[in-house]
This record gives sequence, structure tokens and C-alpha cells, in this order.
Amino acid sequence: MNYSILKYILGYVLKIEAAFMLLPCVTSLIYHEEEGRYFFLVACVCMLLGVLMTYRKPKNTVFYLKEGCLATSLSWIILSLFGAIPFWISGEIPQWENALFETISGFTTTGATVLSNVEGLSHTALIWRSFTHWIGGMGVLVFLLAILPLSGGSSINLMRAESPGPSVGKLVPKVRYTAMILYTIYFGMTVIEFIFLLAGKMPVFDALTTAFGTAGTGGFGIKNDSIMGYSPYIQWVVAIFMILFGINFNFYFYILYRHFRKAISMEEIHYYLAMILIAVTIIFLNVRTMYPTGFEAMTHSVFQVASLATSTGFSTTDFDLWPQTSQTILIIVMFVGACAGSTGGGIKVSRIVIMFKTVLKELNSYIHPKSVRKINVEGKPVDHEVVRSINVFFITFMIIFSLSVFAISFEDEDLVTNFTAVLTTINNMGPGLSKVGPTQNFGHFNVFSKLVLMFDMLAGRLELFPLLILFHPAIWKDSFESHRKKKQKA
Amino acid sequence: MNYSILKYILGYVLKIEAAFMLLPCVTSLIYHEEEGRYFFLVACVCMLLGVLMTYRKPKNTVFYLKEGCLATSLSWIILSLFGAIPFWISGEIPQWENALFETISGFTTTGATVLSNVEGLSHTALIWRSFTHWIGGMGVLVFLLAILPLSGGSSINLMRAESPGPSVGKLVPKVRYTAMILYTIYFGMTVIEFIFLLAGKMPVFDALTTAFGTAGTGGFGIKNDSIMGYSPYIQWVVAIFMILFGINFNFYFYILYRHFRKAISMEEIHYYLAMILIAVTIIFLNVRTMYPTGFEAMTHSVFQVASLATSTGFSTTDFDLWPQTSQTILIIVMFVGACAGSTGGGIKVSRIVIMFKTVLKELNSYIHPKSVRKINVEGKPVDHEVVRSINVFFITFMIIFSLSVFAISFEDEDLVTNFTAVLTTINNMGPGLSKVGPTQNFGHFNVFSKLVLMFDMLAGRLELFPLLILFHPAIWKDSFESHRKKKQKA
Repeated sequence: MNYSILKYILGYVLKIEAAFMLLPCVTSLIYHEEEGRYFFLVACVCMLLGVLMTYRKPKNTVFYLKEGCLATSLSWIILSLFGAIPFWISGEIPQWENALFETISGFTTTGATVLSNVEGLSHTALIWRSFTHWIGGMGVLVFLLAILPLSGGSSINLMRAESPGPSVGKLVPKVRYTAMILYTIYFGMTVIEFIFLLAGKMPVFDALTTAFGTAGTGGFGIKNDSIMGYSPYIQWVVAIFMILFGINFNFYFYILYRHFRKAISMEEIHYYLAMILIAVTIIFLNVRTMYPTGFEAMTHSVFQVASLATSTGFSTTDFDLWPQTSQTILIIVMFVGACAGSTGGGIKVSRIVIMFKTVLKELNSYIHPKSVRKINVEGKPVDHEVVRSINVFFITFMIIFSLSVFAISFEDEDLVTNFTAVLTTINNMGPGLSKVGPTQNFGHFNVFSKLVLMFDMLAGRLELFPLLILFHPAIWKDSFESHRKKKQKA
Repeated sequence: MNYSILKYILGYVLKIEAAFMLLPCVTSLIYHEEEGRYFFLVACVCMLLGVLMTYRKPKNTVFYLKEGCLATSLSWIILSLFGAIPFWISGEIPQWENALFETISGFTTTGATVLSNVEGLSHTALIWRSFTHWIGGMGVLVFLLAILPLSGGSSINLMRAESPGPSVGKLVPKVRYTAMILYTIYFGMTVIEFIFLLAGKMPVFDALTTAFGTAGTGGFGIKNDSIMGYSPYIQWVVAIFMILFGINFNFYFYILYRHFRKAISMEEIHYYLAMILIAVTIIFLNVRTMYPTGFEAMTHSVFQVASLATSTGFSTTDFDLWPQTSQTILIIVMFVGACAGSTGGGIKVSRIVIMFKTVLKELNSYIHPKSVRKINVEGKPVDHEVVRSINVFFITFMIIFSLSVFAISFEDEDLVTNFTAVLTTINNMGPGLSKVGPTQNFGHFNVFSKLVLMFDMLAGRLELFPLLILFHPAIWKDSFESHRKKKQKA
């Protein structure tokens, strides 16, 4: 195990976090709030630690999938731990577990909150809370790759561990440029949404935080009623941008580089848009009579489907009151999620498409036992290894899902609450149904259940395996042994 | 497609059904009930049709997996259609969809009922209702194989399509003898349970129907309160026999032929018993205070776990009132199910074990990317093809599951009702929670939802694919074309 590179990467992550914390510091200066000093303090600590950890550049910069996964999961844990401290020491979220829950929920772009009164937070805390979505959306390690010249081709393993989707490709031969292009698109689209929101006469602070929340498909709002109180124009802007941020970013890359045919032929996006269209149609017909006008019913249908398909979690209406058909559609859409390579969560459309094709292939093999048909996506056969890893992913997902529902069942909440609480955290969604519905929050769970749900949020964001290998005995044995060797040397 | 063999097999199935219907006929004579005449009438029709269809022996008796699957699913559909007619024309279950639901629920050993007052049925109807469980438990085609000398080694395809579990082996080289041995064990164990029940002073009629229900792991009772009203002795006998019928029948074969070491080393059974033990322990601790004595709490815990793990569906208490942890355990146990090669339902322990091992292997591959470790069960590596088909099975299961929950959501029942109604039918279980809980029934669903749930019951019993290929366009094209050719010839 290459520990020196691990330390180096974690140090860099801390330095990046310190830099990111300047945003709440500046905000506190603008609004003359005292909370900024806590952020400044933690930023200084992060910077100090970061500098110490990155002081010596590691001689051996090669790392493999194992180190990539470890670096990713540890980065996210460290990021969350330090990110939670300002909430806690400022007293804005007095319990440590709530502060940590809120921060993990932020970075993983879940958007599930433990707070019943968001409006009671300072602007400083609110902007940090929304900004964590933006940081987590594209990923802190992708950011690191964009700014840090890591030698060797193995840095793709970092990106692979952090990026959502079954197969991560490099857009351009160099990982660093791929990361840069991704962040440029991400930043650019966020700015465009911000401008559109300002055009709808949204206050600057609201527009900035909402743009952060949409871009990361996070869902933290700065109002207790999420997006309900804003104008239909703003609701439509947010809905459309949620859908856009749920699209595979390769699409925008192709558009930028004028590969229009390639962009249009991306099969996953067709299915993603088709899913949204079908879901919206059914829900619209189902809830039409609940709202005074067809336009309002359409606005709520589009918004909720966009929000849940992309795992954002903003809401414009209490969909816990919708009929069962609409709720079932929303749950299915939650499971499916957005496109791979987007900031959205869920199992991902491409995985579901390949799974459906696997089942069709199996059916065909009953009819024509001797035919060996490959599964095709975009006209090209899908590698056997990809199909296998998708199957394994899905099974692992269901196992973690079941165990989590069991683990939080000790609180004796109803089944719908437990079921959707896990579903919504592992998919990095936000609100669920019943006691974790859009007008409720996660504050009523006990510390143990919150820890389970925090684990689910991280597992969901890192796509299960990078986090799970933290629990693999080989990793611990390795670390103990190297510790013992060091002691023996000393 | 070999249509002549299909017709021949279906004809034989009808003849067998006619023979089986003599049991209710005899019962009606004993109890001087008029309902017997309807059974006699239908039995005569079945026999007539059967004789006509098997009059000419097909020249070509070779059939492949495709014919095997088709024969299986069509057999089960025909069996259910004719089995439902007596309920319907006698007026005991006046609606056709309810009569069909009840019969499919019987043959698939689901045990979900549409009747609110079972005690209002005649003895004739009650014994047929329970007998369908017994017929469906081991499978009508396995019975057919035991009595019908089909030439050629391809008859294993029939057994493969009907038998539960990921890989069906022949116990002895000849399929016919394998089928005979299985039915002998099945018959013998049913008789032993019957005797044990009689020893507990259960009336003969009750003991017979209960033994049928346990053996097929079906769950139809003849009392409105299932097994609640019987003595603890009888409850324990039923619980233990449910567990025994959930064990892979190869175990009993090995015991009979004195291969004790082989019997004891069956890995699936260890996991199956361990699962029951863990589930019982947790539930016992969880519900202990709800009952006056520890013995009573233990009885209910063991009974309910045994009933749900084996997908029988008998109950001794209303577990819908149990705490959430116990309910969650029961749901997980329902999903897992019993052993492959038993009469129980669910995904099957062996599939779950292999799925867990797949996930562990995946984790290991992150640590040691170059190692190619095979998954071992009972010390032998599992064929790659088996692992793949299990993954596909699981995915298909979840897809059918989600679509079914959606399909029945239009009735606007609560999520728990819909979710557990589908879970309990696709797993051939019986009761669910909420409005389909142990003290409720399925009568309140509309015709469409009932059809969806009937499909799920058949899909669950036939392990998805044999039923799904009925919907494959190739099958229909094939049948249309052969029809056209016949017409052209004429």
C-alpha cells in the first residue's frame, strides 16, 4: 500500500476545503454575521494540516485501484468531518451527529435535512450548506485532479472511484484535462442558471444557493418550503436545469467540441428523457384534478419528476399527499436515477438499460439456446465485464438497502418511513414519504439510525465499493502491519 | 416447435387433474354434500379432453428447453382454469376472477385468499382448495414424469422448468426415477405429518388439509383464524414440518440412501437453518413482552418465521401488530425464502448465498485486482453460467416486482399494502401486511389488480422465465406461422 500518496492526496483535499471555506467567510463579511469566524478558524486548521501533509512530495506517485478507492472514501470522510465543525462549534446545529448528518447530506448531494427551521440559520451557514452540494456534485477529487499534476496514468483510478456510472471514460487522453473540461462545463452551467434565476427577479443570495443546489442535484433550500414559494417561472427554470444536470456531461463536451452527431446519438439520454416524459404524463393525468389549473398541475408534475429523477430533492408541493400511482412512479424514478456521468444519483439509467437488455437476452436464450448475442448499447457491444459489474452493483445495492432498513427498524417507525428514508439517502435524493416526506425532516431519528443513513449517503455517492473496501479485513491488516514495521524500525 | 408433444403433455395433465378431482368427489360422498357433482362433472370433461388429446402418441418425442418451458407454463394455466370451474359453477365463489385467483393461489402454493369467511365453504371445496397446494408443491409435471415414460433424455427440461432453484440435478441417472423418488419422499413426509397431527387430537379432516397445506408450503387453512385456534402442540408440529418441507429434498434422498456425510455437508441447509435461528432470536427478543409467557412468545416467533421463510403463510398471531423490527425481519426472510429443490418459495437461500459470495469476490477484486477467485459452494467452484443466471434472475425479479407494484397502484391503496401484496404473491407466500395482513384478504382488489397478482403467483412459482417466454414475440410468430401452414395445406 502506498501510504505516502494517500497522505499527500488527503492533505491536498484539506487545502481545497480551506480554500472553499472562504466563500462563507466572505458571505459573513457581507452580512455582518459573527458565524464567519468559525469558518475562518476551521479553514486555517485545514490549511495548516494540509500544508503539513503535503510538505513532502511522495517519491512513488503510482497508485492502483485499491489506493484510489481508499483515497476517495477517506477524502469524503475527512471533508465531511471538517466541513461539519463550523456548524457545530457555532452552535447553529448544536448536536455533533446532526452537524455531521447535514454536512454529509450536503457533500453527497443528498439534501436530506435534520433541521425543521432552515430559515433560522445565518447566511454564512446557509451558503456553506448549499456550497457543499456544488463541491460534492462534480466531486472534490475531480477538482483535485484538475489542479494537481499527478504523474502517471494511474490517476484515472481516482476519477473512476469518485465518478458516477458503470464505465468512466476519459474525454481527452489526459486525465487532468478531462477533469478541467468537466469542471468548466459544470461552472459554466451553474453561472447560466444563476443568470436565468436573477432574470426571474430572484434575490442574489437565493439565486446563488439555488443554483448550487441544482447544479450538484443536491436539494438543500434556504426556505422551509423549498421552492414552493417562488414564481412558476423560477420553478420551471429550476426544473429544466435539474433535468440538464442529470444528463451525462459527455453530452455537453460533445456539443462544445461540435461532435453533434455523437451527442445526439447518446442512447442513455434518450431513455432518460423518455422516462421523464412518461413519468410526467402519468403523474399529470393522475394529479390533474388536485390543482386549480392544468398549468399548475403540469408545473408540479414536471418539477417533482425532475427533482426525484435527478435525485435533487427540491419540491414545490407535498407529494406525500399525491395518489398512490404517482407516489409509486416517483419511487421507481428515484430507484432509476439520472444518467451516468452526471451529478445525479440513483442506480443510473445506463445500468437499468443494460439490466433490461440482459433480461431480454436471457429470454432469447430460452428460444434460441445456441445463439450468443451480445448486449449492444449505441450499436457497440457492451463488454462482458461491464455487464457483470452492473449485476454485482445492483445486488450489493439491494443488500445494503435491506440491511439498512433493518438497522433503522429498531426505532419502530412505520415501514414507509424506514423504506423511503433509506431509499432517499442511498440514492442521494433528499425527501422520502411519510415521516421523512417533503414537509418533514430527519431530525427525529436517533444517533444510531443517523449513522446508518450517513453511511448510506456516502455509499450511494461513492457507488458502494470504494466505501465498502474500508471494511475489508485486508485493508486493516495491511495498515496494522505497516504500523508494526515502523515501530520495529524505530 | 414440436406441437404434437405439447398437446400430448397438456392432455396428460388434464387426465391427472381429473384423477386428482376424485378426492373432492369422495369427500362430498362422505359428508353428503351436493358440491361433489360439480367436481365430478369437471373431472369428466377433463378426462374426455385428456383422452382426446393423448389419443395419438406423437412420433417425435424430443423437446428442448423452449418446449419444456411452454409445456410447463401452459400446463399450470390449464390446470388452474379447470381447477377453478367447480368453485365457480357451484356458486361457492361466485365471481370467476375470485375462483381463478383462489385456484392459482392454491396450485402455486401461495395461500393468498379472496375469501373473508373460509368456514362457509363446503368440505368438498375445502379439501380441493388444500389439495391444490399439495399438487402444486412438488409440481404436476414432476408427477407426470414419474408416471409417464417419455423417451429421450430431454425430459429433464420439463423438470428444470418446473422445479425451484438455480440448478436442477438428477438424483439418479433416469429422470423418471428421480421424479418417483421425489414424490415418494413428499408423500411419505405428508403422511408422517398427518399422523403427528392426529396424535395431537386434531380432527381427521383438519389434519389432512393442514398436512396438504404444510407439505406444499401453501398456507390455505380451513379456519378463518388459520392455525391460531389449535393447541401449542399442533402449532409446533406444523412449524417444524414447515421448516422440514423448506429443506432441499436432496437432503432426504441422501438420508434415505445412507449418504449421511453428503446430507450433512449441504451448505445451503446450514445457511437456511442459521437464517431461521437468527430471525427467531431477534423476533423473540423483540416481541417477548407482547405475550404472557416466554413459551408463547417463542411459539409465535418460531411459527411465523417458519411460515414466512418457507412461504407457507399459516399464522398463529396477527404479526401486522408486531414492532417494526420484527416486521422488517419477516419481510427480509420472505424475500430470501427457503432452499432450492424444496416446495418453498422466495428467491431461495442458495441464490442469496451465491449473491453474497459474488459481492465478496467483487470486494476482493478491488484489493487484489489480478486474482481470479472462483465462487465456491460446498468446496466446489460454482459454474460461471449459474452465477450469471442468478444475477439475471434477481434483476428480472426486481423488474417484475416494480412493474407489478406500479400496476396495482391505481387502486390507491397504501404503499405497504401494494408492496407486500406483490411481495407475498410473487414469493408464493400468502399474507402480507396492512390491508393484506394475516387477518385480511385479497378480495378488495379489482379484477385488473387480481390478474396482475395471479400473473405474479404463476411467475413466482415457475421462477419467472418459463412464464415470461409466453410473451416472447418469437413464440407467437412461430405459432401463427404453423397455423397458416396448416391452413394452406388444407
